[in-house]
Amino acid sequence: MIAVDWGTSSARAYRLAPDGAVLERREGAGGILRVPEGGFPAALAGMVGPWLADGETRVLLSGMVGSRQGWQEAPYLACPAGLDDLAGAVEPVPFAEATVRLVPGLSAEDASGVPEVMRGEEVQVFGALARSDEDALLCLPGSHAKWVRVAGGRIAGFSTSLTGEAFAALKDHTILGRMMTGTAEIGPAFEAGIARAGEEGGLLHHLFGTRTLGLFGRLAAEDAASYLSGLLIGHEVSAAMTTPASVRLVGSGPLMALYGRAIVLRGGEAIAGDPDAAARGLALIGERTAWM
Amino acid sequence: MIAVDWGTSSARAYRLAPDGAVLERREGAGGILRVPEGGFPAALAGMVGPWLADGETRVLLSGMVGSRQGWQEAPYLACPAGLDDLAGAVEPVPFAEATVRLVPGLSAEDASGVPEVMRGEEVQVFGALARSDEDALLCLPGSHAKWVRVAGGRIAGFSTSLTGEAFAALKDHTILGRMMTGTAEIGPAFEAGIARAGEEGGLLHHLFGTRTLGLFGRLAAEDAASYLSGLLIGHEVSAAMTTPASVRLVGSGPLMALYGRAIVLRGGEAIAGDPDAAARGLALIGERTAWM
Repeated sequence: MIAVDWGTSSARAYRLAPDGAVLERREGAGGILRVPEGGFPAALAGMVGPWLADGETRVLLSGMVGSRQGWQEAPYLACPAGLDDLAGAVEPVPFAEATVRLVPGLSAEDASGVPEVMRGEEVQVFGALARSDEDALLCLPGSHAKWVRVAGGRIAGFSTSLTGEAFAALKDHTILGRMMTGTAEIGPAFEAGIARAGEEGGLLHHLFGTRTLGLFGRLAAEDAASYLSGLLIGHEVSAAMTTPASVRLVGSGPLMALYGRAIVLRGGEAIAGDPDAAARGLALIGERTAWM
Repeated sequence: MIAVDWGTSSARAYRLAPDGAVLERREGAGGILRVPEGGFPAALAGMVGPWLADGETRVLLSGMVGSRQGWQEAPYLACPAGLDDLAGAVEPVPFAEATVRLVPGLSAEDASGVPEVMRGEEVQVFGALARSDEDALLCLPGSHAKWVRVAGGRIAGFSTSLTGEAFAALKDHTILGRMMTGTAEIGPAFEAGIARAGEEGGLLHHLFGTRTLGLFGRLAAEDAASYLSGLLIGHEVSAAMTTPASVRLVGSGPLMALYGRAIVLRGGEAIAGDPDAAARGLALIGERTAWM
């Protein structure tokens, strides 16, 4: 089977063995925003053509490729939802050279009834679980960071925070960025931001402190981005992990270490997940899918 | 006396009667950022030259004109500070045609020891007080909104939030702005944002809800800026007004009504202040200043 995790800004294709093991992988040309109108069949063929020529007949897609801006819109499936629910809801996509199915995204509501959506992360979550009946709390860092509650092996609910996008907007488009020279890194400044997030005054007040600490020589320009990152991730973790918990981190890249440190400093435990969680999740859904 | 409230982006000059009444007013050519290197004497003469020619001999300045980017840097005075402290700390500024004095800004630390600064707002605060021995909580909305505690007629401490700048950065530089067509206004969407700010989940999570409510047709594009404004101002007011209080609002423009509504919805009472509070504050300081 071929598995493709096709998001807004990137695409990752995997050729999988019958037992789900990754045989080969390819980074695609780019996310759905780089695919021209009507260009999805050609984009898929460009990514996985050699594997199709070599005899693969099934392709399972997940991510924003199933959104209105993607190849074909797949309606959200409501939580709670498990692997069997996702496999039972895959959508057929017309494609000449193979049988293509699309995994739908999930929707939920938070405690106040405000809607939540994800596309692609649900597959990574199932790929990151150790057991099919697990209870777990997972965190997927990113522009729109997600915290996902799994109960009995099904996604019970989730919550999204605009942390990554807010960081970029505040750094690049407010006075805070004028005093910043570096990138966000683990270290004393990041940890000071995490600690600050636990103090009174609220996030909007804490943001201003990034400037005054710099004005008074108590925060160096090269540390300011780390401090700001610690503030934002600290506020996110405090709101999402209301009691110290064991958190499974899903994803890859420098954010994983930052979130891991923030979770530990807030009293929790962080478990690093498999960076190929999407491939494993698609394999598990593919096994349960009625392909004919 | 001539009083000038000279900030980063605007300058307001007042000709005052001996009893502090405003005789005439002028909006200057612009804030300190528009004054070229060494150009402050000419900029002042351009604003108040006719009043000097008509016999005025004293000029009192406040605001960012006393910062490193202004005419001359005046060190911050530490809180608590009252009118007499400010009058005792005015700085002489060389100017051929009149005696010019500069009111210093104030510094403080919040409960956690993080520094706070203001330049110009302290003058507005004293101008907005009803009595010289008052206890009061004041709010000055803006890009960097300030909440000021006055005890016995002196500024005891204050807290700044990046609310206005964060609103602009989020609106113009994140996905939230893509679904926004209007400006922030009082109404059901603004009030829904205020209510949302009181719910669990934290600001970064609430921000993402602005997008999902739009995706699910529960927040119209023309209401989204009002909702976002309500969210941010709601979070600020909740953090700054920890118990319902009577709050004196200082400033002018559309933000005053938004903050007034937010304070009332959070159980407080909002009292609109004098839009010429800066002129009154400078008059009170000028009375106490040793001009020779």
